[in-house]
Amino acid sequence: MANWFSRKPRRIEIPRLRSRGDDLVTTKVDLHEFTPDLMHFLGRAAYVQLTLFENLSRALASAPTTAAKTSISRAAEFSLAKHRRLVDEIQHAGGDAAALMEPSTADVDRFERATHGADWFETLVTCYVTAGFLDDFFARLAVGLPAEPARRVATIYAGESGEALLAALLEEAIGANPRLASRLAMWGRRLVGDTMLVSRESLQFGENHRSDEERIEPVFTELIAAHTRRMDLLGLTA
Amino acid sequence: MANWFSRKPRRIEIPRLRSRGDDLVTTKVDLHEFTPDLMHFLGRAAYVQLTLFENLSRALASAPTTAAKTSISRAAEFSLAKHRRLVDEIQHAGGDAAALMEPSTADVDRFERATHGADWFETLVTCYVTAGFLDDFFARLAVGLPAEPARRVATIYAGESGEALLAALLEEAIGANPRLASRLAMWGRRLVGDTMLVSRESLQFGENHRSDEERIEPVFTELIAAHTRRMDLLGLTA
Repeated sequence: MANWFSRKPRRIEIPRLRSRGDDLVTTKVDLHEFTPDLMHFLGRAAYVQLTLFENLSRALASAPTTAAKTSISRAAEFSLAKHRRLVDEIQHAGGDAAALMEPSTADVDRFERATHGADWFETLVTCYVTAGFLDDFFARLAVGLPAEPARRVATIYAGESGEALLAALLEEAIGANPRLASRLAMWGRRLVGDTMLVSRESLQFGENHRSDEERIEPVFTELIAAHTRRMDLLGLTA
Repeated sequence: MANWFSRKPRRIEIPRLRSRGDDLVTTKVDLHEFTPDLMHFLGRAAYVQLTLFENLSRALASAPTTAAKTSISRAAEFSLAKHRRLVDEIQHAGGDAAALMEPSTADVDRFERATHGADWFETLVTCYVTAGFLDDFFARLAVGLPAEPARRVATIYAGESGEALLAALLEEAIGANPRLASRLAMWGRRLVGDTMLVSRESLQFGENHRSDEERIEPVFTELIAAHTRRMDLLGLTA
């Protein structure tokens, strides 16, 4: 079983690749035991989404063609809409979005710097891989919110996503320059560690740390399986 | 009378400052004689708006506080919505947005580089000043489109704008650090030349260049007057 957070190195078994026909998101297990209170959840989720949007904006600004800009602007629009709906949810609950995002700036900004990418292609992989992982993660974490906001937040994460648009751009780039594949595969693997770390820092742990670690393991195993399928869609080894 | 495009240097008279109560946008004169055909107009307007959005994204990424990020993300959302509606208009007319934006990349990208700004404050002034000017410009140019698209494009430019949000952020920044005022006033003046140039490159001129120059002068005089009022709102001399 994968345990990315164990201090002792363990053998990590990445789940087998599945065929392209499989759903990208599986929702067998959730994280309801580790959901912070509503305001903390929303502030964190809103700031993470803003960072995912910033990554897309960076990819947009450095895109080599207007066709790529057109696709990325659409993906950016979906991400910004998610951020806006999370902020609306904060206001609905009587909170101050800026103040609630503040505690997340240190570690989310560090995540952003670590996943910046050396060029447009790597930034695009960052957008594709980290947004896929984190939207999936927050959707599973939202299950532990009170019923009404949980339902609305689920709708937000079930909304339109730029994933297919980004996958198409990446497939095209790799098709045009097959030598990109090994570099982007390596970059995709590097992203998993930082993305898991910023996810983990979003969890509210109890007293019994060891048993908590065991309980989150299956969720992260599924999140990594979804990541593997995302990479597989591009023809890259995760 | 202002003539920024004359080769011979002429004395430029900037219109007098007006009180804050005045409307920011005057629409006495338009540019209908110089409107390119619908597809060229929409491609250019969409690419310019995408660049205004990219500037806002850059200001968002480098914003010093989550409160500033919250304001700028709203402004970015309005700008992206304008871009999207212009792209929808292209699709409505059976055009290909990416292909129609392509001819604008060289000079609009040059405009973007020239108006980049040395830090967050200058980038914010760029967002405030160039979006105000260019949205005003394209609204006046749209008057020359066929009636139906002209009406819809007018609605797009009359839509929500981040101008007041950006002005509030800048007022706050200058209030907290009054020494910023002279540097930002100078930056605001420098932006006018590049913004007028990229506007002018959006016009379709006729055979009689000299008479065309005379006919566009009053429009640019009004656009500069609006710019002066925008700077005045910040307490800066234009």
